[in-house]
Amino acid sequence: MSGFRILHQAVGSGARVGRLTLAHGEVATPAFMPVATHGSVKGLTPRDLRECGAEIVLANAYHLSLRPGADVIARLGGLHRFMGWEGPILTDSGGYQIFSLATLARVREEGVDFRSHLDGSSHFLGPEEAIRIQEALGSDVAMVLDECPPGGAARDVVLAATERSARWAARAVAMRSRSEQAVFGIVQGGSDLGLRAESVRATVALGFDGYALGGLSVGEPREVTWAVAAVTAPLLPADRPRYFMGSGTPGDLARLVGAGIDLFDCVLPTRHARNGALFTSAGTVVLRHARYADDPRPADERCACYTCTRFSRAYLRHLHMAREPLAVTLNTVHNVTYYERLMQDMRTAIVADAFGAFAAGVVGEERHSWPD
Amino acid sequence: MSGFRILHQAVGSGARVGRLTLAHGEVATPAFMPVATHGSVKGLTPRDLRECGAEIVLANAYHLSLRPGADVIARLGGLHRFMGWEGPILTDSGGYQIFSLATLARVREEGVDFRSHLDGSSHFLGPEEAIRIQEALGSDVAMVLDECPPGGAARDVVLAATERSARWAARAVAMRSRSEQAVFGIVQGGSDLGLRAESVRATVALGFDGYALGGLSVGEPREVTWAVAAVTAPLLPADRPRYFMGSGTPGDLARLVGAGIDLFDCVLPTRHARNGALFTSAGTVVLRHARYADDPRPADERCACYTCTRFSRAYLRHLHMAREPLAVTLNTVHNVTYYERLMQDMRTAIVADAFGAFAAGVVGEERHSWPD
Repeated sequence: MSGFRILHQAVGSGARVGRLTLAHGEVATPAFMPVATHGSVKGLTPRDLRECGAEIVLANAYHLSLRPGADVIARLGGLHRFMGWEGPILTDSGGYQIFSLATLARVREEGVDFRSHLDGSSHFLGPEEAIRIQEALGSDVAMVLDECPPGGAARDVVLAATERSARWAARAVAMRSRSEQAVFGIVQGGSDLGLRAESVRATVALGFDGYALGGLSVGEPREVTWAVAAVTAPLLPADRPRYFMGSGTPGDLARLVGAGIDLFDCVLPTRHARNGALFTSAGTVVLRHARYADDPRPADERCACYTCTRFSRAYLRHLHMAREPLAVTLNTVHNVTYYERLMQDMRTAIVADAFGAFAAGVVGEERHSWPD
Repeated sequence: MSGFRILHQAVGSGARVGRLTLAHGEVATPAFMPVATHGSVKGLTPRDLRECGAEIVLANAYHLSLRPGADVIARLGGLHRFMGWEGPILTDSGGYQIFSLATLARVREEGVDFRSHLDGSSHFLGPEEAIRIQEALGSDVAMVLDECPPGGAARDVVLAATERSARWAARAVAMRSRSEQAVFGIVQGGSDLGLRAESVRATVALGFDGYALGGLSVGEPREVTWAVAAVTAPLLPADRPRYFMGSGTPGDLARLVGAGIDLFDCVLPTRHARNGALFTSAGTVVLRHARYADDPRPADERCACYTCTRFSRAYLRHLHMAREPLAVTLNTVHNVTYYERLMQDMRTAIVADAFGAFAAGVVGEERHSWPD
């Protein structure tokens, strides 16, 4: 089950505000999905997540199928019950992780043979298995398995991967058995605009509930990422949600929303939090810097999150330097809140027909201040 | 400022229920203080702590004076504001930590010279400095600096340390300048009941707001610990709170409450949580055990904490095995709740004149099941 309604389309920009209806609830788009790779956004309870403004989270079928196992989660009532999150969940199929994390990955037409990065055990994953696993997990949105060639791969490698991904996508569609679970196709094609267009055609022909841009932010220059998205997104059906996988900084998100993207996930806010780097309305606060040692101000004076309304930069720095576990929680609450509020602000700007100026502001600030 | 009122004294046992009034609020006794060594109970927000039932926490002046510095915390408005905890805080002076953690500790009559365990820098701490630091932190209860001889030390070593601790206690009293901060004396004397009695006499003569038993649970047999507490506690003024430092298991607490102890602190619930061991009404749940891999039950079916009402043992095991930061939070929420409810149950049993049977039950269960 999936529905997508566009509530406002910007003029002079691809940006749009929509409402995505999934089995476990509605998601205002453009939306950011915090990353819960192993079924937990690192350091956050489901209550924390909700308070940060998150409406949907991303989990990873590759990781969860290796540990604790999709069958285990299914017997326990599915991923929502397992992780105590009642809202929508999108699961990535794990294609990207097989090619980046697993060892000895070998692609054949049936699927991928690989060894677990945890214990070296042998596994096979094909497009049918990827759907079966995600149906067992019971996520709201399943992603098809795709082949992800490395950034900078030769054109014939990218071409072969793109064509195989399309054949796998067709097999995934044939395998679907749960109408309540949306399935998104993934457009490949690397940085080649012609291959991207061909991948769009082949993928859209299969009639998915939504479409992702995959194989980007994998090492190519950021200008190329933005250009590919800007050219490719408009080729996708306007009435289906568009998901850009695995990106990015606030400025990236602003640019990609302008290209017509509706959904995002990225480890930046959560990973930076663990490293003591906070996104703020006045630029990055890197907690290890001595200047914060007796700074009584909140991380971000414009932020109303649990962390910013109760704790000083000095305390956050102290927790980070002392490697206190609470540092992870408090920093992540703030960074995820920052990202979720950024999306809210973008939605507001789009509806007010002021997205261009808003996005330019985000991009301009970032040039000086944010880590990536 | 400190007041202590006994609301119910058990018959046939030293156990009593009381109410301790401190600058930042009231504490129902017997009470357990979760340990916030560096100004944070590891993995818990102040909100989590409150929901676990904690009314008072313990922080450590030794650690906080080395990092971030008592003067820094004072400039930021004191320890309560620094750590976002509005309830009572007891600070340990750090005597025990100097002797157990710092290197090259040398005791002279003025105080202790030592090197920081963090960076090897040289420091001096005397009884006056210990009070000054804790006044700067602004804790509700300050502990005097004492000399802590190792467990099993020769009698003349213990005697000398006990006598010096008494002289230091007198200097601490002379140094007090903040009437709103309670100061507790510490009874030393190792396992020697004669030295303990002499230390009680010397310490009580100085007129503290409360009295602690120190230098126990430092390696001596547990039967000795209990015996020393059972003999020494009744020698202390009945109308002052009694604090047993650094212990223990639920069974230890039940025995010590029976000896007339009112306050406890211990790292067991928080440390065990980080190691994946959960205290439950059916014995210890050690999460790494494979039998919990698909166990749908909560950690403790009789527990109403955030963790037990939302998550299965299978999920907690998964988080622990995957080293997810949320494991620390969820396990600690449960274990601290378990300890706080144990204290609540003891208070209820005392008021109902049923403490003997209750304590015997706790001690009996523990013989088979709890880690220590």
